Amino acid sequence: SSPEGRAPAKRKTYPPWLRFHLGISRWELYNRKDPNLAQLTHYLATQRILGAVQKTGGTQLKLLISFPNHGQALLKPMKQSRDTETDVNLFYFSDFERHNAEISAFHLDRLLGFNRIPPVVGRLMNVTADIREKTTDHKVSRTFFTSPAGNVCFYGQCEYYCSTEHPVCGRPHLLEVSLAAILPDLSLAPRRSWRSPWRRSYSRTKLAQWEKNPNYCDSVKQTPPYSQGTRLVDLIDMAVLDFLMSNMDRHHYETFEKFGNETFLLHLDNGRAFGRHSQDEPSILAPLQQCCRIRRSTLLRLRLLALPDFRLSDVMRESLAQDPLADAAPLLSEAHLSALDRRLAAVLQVVHTCQEKHTDVIHDDLDRYDQDSLTDRNTKQ
Amino acid sequence: SSPEGRAPAKRKTYPPWLRFHLGISRWELYNRKDPNLAQLTHYLATQRILGAVQKTGGTQLKLLISFPNHGQALLKPMKQSRDTETDVNLFYFSDFERHNAEISAFHLDRLLGFNRIPPVVGRLMNVTADIREKTTDHKVSRTFFTSPAGNVCFYGQCEYYCSTEHPVCGRPHLLEVSLAAILPDLSLAPRRSWRSPWRRSYSRTKLAQWEKNPNYCDSVKQTPPYSQGTRLVDLIDMAVLDFLMSNMDRHHYETFEKFGNETFLLHLDNGRAFGRHSQDEPSILAPLQQCCRIRRSTLLRLRLLALPDFRLSDVMRESLAQDPLADAAPLLSEAHLSALDRRLAAVLQVVHTCQEKHTDVIHDDLDRYDQDSLTDRNTKQ
Repeated sequence: SSPEGRAPAKRKTYPPWLRFHLGISRWELYNRKDPNLAQLTHYLATQRILGAVQKTGGTQLKLLISFPNHGQALLKPMKQSRDTETDVNLFYFSDFERHNAEISAFHLDRLLGFNRIPPVVGRLMNVTADIREKTTDHKVSRTFFTSPAGNVCFYGQCEYYCSTEHPVCGRPHLLEVSLAAILPDLSLAPRRSWRSPWRRSYSRTKLAQWEKNPNYCDSVKQTPPYSQGTRLVDLIDMAVLDFLMSNMDRHHYETFEKFGNETFLLHLDNGRAFGRHSQDEPSILAPLQQCCRIRRSTLLRLRLLALPDFRLSDVMRESLAQDPLADAAPLLSEAHLSALDRRLAAVLQVVHTCQEKHTDVIHDDLDRYDQDSLTDRNTKQ
Repeated sequence: SSPEGRAPAKRKTYPPWLRFHLGISRWELYNRKDPNLAQLTHYLATQRILGAVQKTGGTQLKLLISFPNHGQALLKPMKQSRDTETDVNLFYFSDFERHNAEISAFHLDRLLGFNRIPPVVGRLMNVTADIREKTTDHKVSRTFFTSPAGNVCFYGQCEYYCSTEHPVCGRPHLLEVSLAAILPDLSLAPRRSWRSPWRRSYSRTKLAQWEKNPNYCDSVKQTPPYSQGTRLVDLIDMAVLDFLMSNMDRHHYETFEKFGNETFLLHLDNGRAFGRHSQDEPSILAPLQQCCRIRRSTLLRLRLLALPDFRLSDVMRESLAQDPLADAAPLLSEAHLSALDRRLAAVLQVVHTCQEKHTDVIHDDLDRYDQDSLTDRNTKQ
């Protein structure tokens, strides 16, 4: 029998995380209609936890959680209440990571039609039963303590905010966390990390090139891989996503090596989004504003989400209500939701201004999707 | 002419800080009726600032400010809004110091009739003109930066909370601070530091002896200097003050060496008081509760302040309203003020319970004041 013939039957027995891996294509991480998406988030939200170790890399505390069937998830803990706005005197590189930002970013990216963020779900965990008693990682276990309020807390070992002064605490054991699906192992699906041309300086005093030179995009447009294919409009998609959720921390992005330069950009690590609702950060839109280029599919989706019947804040509210943590409190406050509408209007205004000056603003990308799969061994090996 | 004859005339020309030093007696730091008290706080609140250097010792940022006429003050900056309650998961040794706690502690100590805290006053300073442009201390000047909100910030060099993540910021230049009068130089008036017998463990896990042994006071009572004189009831006065303002951080206290063991205790360093209004901390009263001893003068004053016409919250509100910073917002919120009344009732209840079991609760201290002066060179040299 042919490999194609056997595959669908066999796949049904795969755990959701493996089906997620097998479904990654050249142009998106998942298909938004794939029933496995709901199965995967359900799996992450409910499976028994077997282990927890600290995940290295990055500057703040995160854990790698393991489930039966070799499933894994990246955990980010709740560190502050959902309504706490980022202190106005904190730099983007000092801001706390937020578990609800990780969850909300996944929903927003999906609603924008990008499908470039690994699925994330909220979960109420027991820090004692699920972490303290399961971990084999001494960097984690030796930092557990009981707080003055009688809560079980820990802080791990990391560059920022890993100290008694910034503990992660249960109430007294229960802790809200975000759990993100893990990508295929790097040995199976190596990835390449790209420094964003619109990366910020990560300095309190220095400005980046793009902040000083209004014609910065001219040189980016001439530089591979931005000089051909969809890479530049992909970057602009990412800027639109980041502006909507006010994420200033997009220093790098990744792609799957296997797909070369003709592939989507992974929108990983969104914990610093949704930090402030009362203010917008126009500089995040610099790629759109300086290059005056946008995918037609993205623009159509943005225009749709600006219509009263499909208002972005409404579809986000509805989508986030599906998350298990929404039972306790909305994952994004109304102030954050209405900031989305305000920012969406700002994006459309920038596009409008571009169109008044240029004729090549819209990058026609429709009917160009390719169905190459990343790890479907039946069709690729 | 005799020295006594010349002194009063000469003193009038002294700056307020020097008159404060000269007025220190064996039993109190100042006389509450001395007009110099108001002159001293006015001096601290209004004098031109000549310099600012970091004060070493302690774990959090504080500055030594210098004025014309050789005056100096200890500065603690505002780090959080007045209404922010200490996080329930923070230990007493990790809590932020509060400028309004320093100010409020001075007022409370005075209203209790102790007069054992050096005068403290609030001031709105210009961080740029008064600190950045005046400091010669590189540990301070090299940490200045402009925050994302355009505020001028700095953080200095210290053990806790001296980092970009915990800046002290003006708005954009104006910063609320507390300024405490400095005590006479240690070379003129050496002090002795005493470890409090009821010191906490400063550990997340260990308990101190007094927390485990209900008869702990029996051994303290037999140990010099607590075995004679007023040292034990002085310590209990301090515990009453600390319980009222919920200060758990009283690990040491100081006395002036010149006065030997028969002298008052200095109540220095009150920045961690007034951190929580919604909860009381009964363990702070352990010295009173375990020893069942209290000065008559203290008890009479506490009973007075429990009467409707002299309610502690009312006299504190009125007293704090005199501070220059009270123009912007009350130095203590109503929640903190009513916590004072609630805690005062709790102190009186502990005394009452003691009196039901013991006959030697009240230490009769009235008519025992001595008028020895610490640094009056006219009478002492």
